[in-house]
Amino acid sequence: MQQVNIGMVGLGNVGSGTVTILAENAEQIALKLGFRLRVAAACSLDVHERQLPESLGPVFKTLDWREVVSHPEVDIVVELVGGTTVASEIIHAAIDNRKSVVTANKELMAKCGFEIWERAIRSGINLAMEASVAGGIPIHAVLREGISGDRIAAIYGILNGTSNYILTEMERRGDSFEKVLAEAQALGYAEANPSADVDGFDARSKLAILAALAFGERITPSDIFVEGIRRITSIDFRYARQLGHTIRLICGARQTREGLILSVRPALIRQDTILSGVLGSYNAVWVKGVYGEDTFYYGRGAGSRPTGVAVVSDLMRVARELRAGSPERVSPFAHERLGEYKPLPITQQKRPYYLRFRVVDRPGIIAALAGILAEKHISLEAVLQEPCDNKHDLPFVITVEETSEGDIREAVDRMAALDFLLEPPLALPMEPPL
Amino acid sequence: MQQVNIGMVGLGNVGSGTVTILAENAEQIALKLGFRLRVAAACSLDVHERQLPESLGPVFKTLDWREVVSHPEVDIVVELVGGTTVASEIIHAAIDNRKSVVTANKELMAKCGFEIWERAIRSGINLAMEASVAGGIPIHAVLREGISGDRIAAIYGILNGTSNYILTEMERRGDSFEKVLAEAQALGYAEANPSADVDGFDARSKLAILAALAFGERITPSDIFVEGIRRITSIDFRYARQLGHTIRLICGARQTREGLILSVRPALIRQDTILSGVLGSYNAVWVKGVYGEDTFYYGRGAGSRPTGVAVVSDLMRVARELRAGSPERVSPFAHERLGEYKPLPITQQKRPYYLRFRVVDRPGIIAALAGILAEKHISLEAVLQEPCDNKHDLPFVITVEETSEGDIREAVDRMAALDFLLEPPLALPMEPPL
Repeated sequence: MQQVNIGMVGLGNVGSGTVTILAENAEQIALKLGFRLRVAAACSLDVHERQLPESLGPVFKTLDWREVVSHPEVDIVVELVGGTTVASEIIHAAIDNRKSVVTANKELMAKCGFEIWERAIRSGINLAMEASVAGGIPIHAVLREGISGDRIAAIYGILNGTSNYILTEMERRGDSFEKVLAEAQALGYAEANPSADVDGFDARSKLAILAALAFGERITPSDIFVEGIRRITSIDFRYARQLGHTIRLICGARQTREGLILSVRPALIRQDTILSGVLGSYNAVWVKGVYGEDTFYYGRGAGSRPTGVAVVSDLMRVARELRAGSPERVSPFAHERLGEYKPLPITQQKRPYYLRFRVVDRPGIIAALAGILAEKHISLEAVLQEPCDNKHDLPFVITVEETSEGDIREAVDRMAALDFLLEPPLALPMEPPL
Repeated sequence: MQQVNIGMVGLGNVGSGTVTILAENAEQIALKLGFRLRVAAACSLDVHERQLPESLGPVFKTLDWREVVSHPEVDIVVELVGGTTVASEIIHAAIDNRKSVVTANKELMAKCGFEIWERAIRSGINLAMEASVAGGIPIHAVLREGISGDRIAAIYGILNGTSNYILTEMERRGDSFEKVLAEAQALGYAEANPSADVDGFDARSKLAILAALAFGERITPSDIFVEGIRRITSIDFRYARQLGHTIRLICGARQTREGLILSVRPALIRQDTILSGVLGSYNAVWVKGVYGEDTFYYGRGAGSRPTGVAVVSDLMRVARELRAGSPERVSPFAHERLGEYKPLPITQQKRPYYLRFRVVDRPGIIAALAGILAEKHISLEAVLQEPCDNKHDLPFVITVEETSEGDIREAVDRMAALDFLLEPPLALPMEPPL
């Protein structure tokens, strides 16, 4: 029984989980594959202080990743250092050495995935990146294999566990964004600098990869509209509930007749949909297929072991293909060379909208706001106002019928000049039932 | 660009969906694969009257499946006739002719999957069966590839759309099983003879396949405990709701220290779990992994096009492997040759239970029932009784703390002799939160 040899670069959170699973699950992996996966080499800054599981046998340890990617025994390089600088060097060096690559690097694959895949295919090596999106949810395997026969109409995902944890705790406890964020930071659920999570950039990288896989287009992350969750208040959850909705940071990619619309933004979603049941740090992806209709995938979005499962499962597939000698690949990015890629500006998106205002109360407010909406031919749907004693900071909501994001923005811009408003109106799209 | 040729046997519901997708999606499939899939031959009883999509080009049509499986151009045989007689002949003949096989046949694969896989591997051909379980949910791809690195602790599935439709309609409308079943039959959602669906046998075949994939064991469907949904009443939904639960036909497979416990039966599941949000004819599978923790998969359980997506996705994978010349396979059944397969009798399952009684009201009923429970050392948890005017048919519920199914059965058997009972008590397990 010949074995396939692995070189690990990076032994942090995901790396540790990967090594643990490779050690503890070695027998089952060998039974499923018909051969063994062996950790031949490992690199990390503290590798010489690390006690690797004994059952792995002798592992070549080094502080220099170049010694892993050039190691003559290593068949597959696992890149788990993250970021876009050294990680990129590691992956390109592995390809130069004709090693296959498994990576969990969302940022790099979102930014340079297309080029890396092209190089990998030309070099006849294999590349796998299940762990780069939604940790324990095998959404790559689903898109690449499970429903590869379908044509994807839309994807909606909850892809950032930290934001989802904050939003669902705000909803559950009625607390403010700031309070829940501070607690999440104290508990280690959120970073000291939370921007990547709460401003939507982490989710945007993941959406870029998923959309590339789903639509076969070369997606540029900076093309994706992104808005974070900092402006959401507990009041918004109360009004959303009155409307039968809740609020989540939704990563959306939809094929429309005019082109692809991509966005990461807080949105109202109906409470009776399965997506609204995604609580805490869980992730989920909802896929609408032209033929397969609705499918939905849910699981841990991060964590050492769930993400480790994704890396190990990728290793098993890549190893199986290595052994079978099947290097011929088609890039999961940009297979759709039928037409030209047309990312639509978000302003062309059409949705009903939720508009939340904070005002100093006085007569004529609704008339002024309704007047601006009427000028833009936006139909008002409902006005919601909870009882409130504070006439100096009165929150209320107007919902409007389906209209374009462009018209909403123009209306909101005009409203912002009104002197009774304490802050610019918050406009959130109301997504269709998923 | 070389093509891979397909021979279709069976052009019914799933066959039509498959052919439609192969025709309409041909360009995208070719871009994803790097070569074309071509329908070279087709067999069905009405094949000569069938208008196949023009874009397929010339297709060899025959009434004799033997002409498909022996056709020199055919690389992959798609078996979509169902059942265990002719379908078995077709698959074995295809293997004899060294053709790869894609099938949607749950009954055959549940019963004879192990032997068919062994033959396929010996013959160096490939076999795929995504469509045999949960139609549009790519649960095979998930277990075989997506989370193959994990070790599965438990699977809970809703795998029969008809039963789930009936239960969720009973819950929503408060109607009886008989009434909702009759309507479902009138609408074509349920068969004239509904037994396979409502008595759990269809779900049992699917669970046998899933459990074989998940646990690597050779599962015999008749080893799986099965109980249908005929005894569930609208009253049970009301009591379940009071307990924060709902009722679904749950296919469960759990690895315990003592062995594997397998069952298909109606069970109480908590309302705040994602599984309880599976409504109507949708299917879902919840997987508990030792390393990956909870993942959840949801989608259409049947239907021409969703199941067609599963068949076409299988075809793409098998064709890719054919082209890569990678016949080496390990059976997805019975990879787990580490220990001996020990299916535990259902009587060893431990759960809290819901016991529902219908009685002629009179003093001493609770005392008599509680006395029997006490004798079996079963701890009573709660007694629930809705106001009811009919003293001659009074429904009420006792819940008990975790106990073994064996003890519950003995208690229920002893209760059945009590003369105030109108029917034997209904005992349903209360599943842990999923």
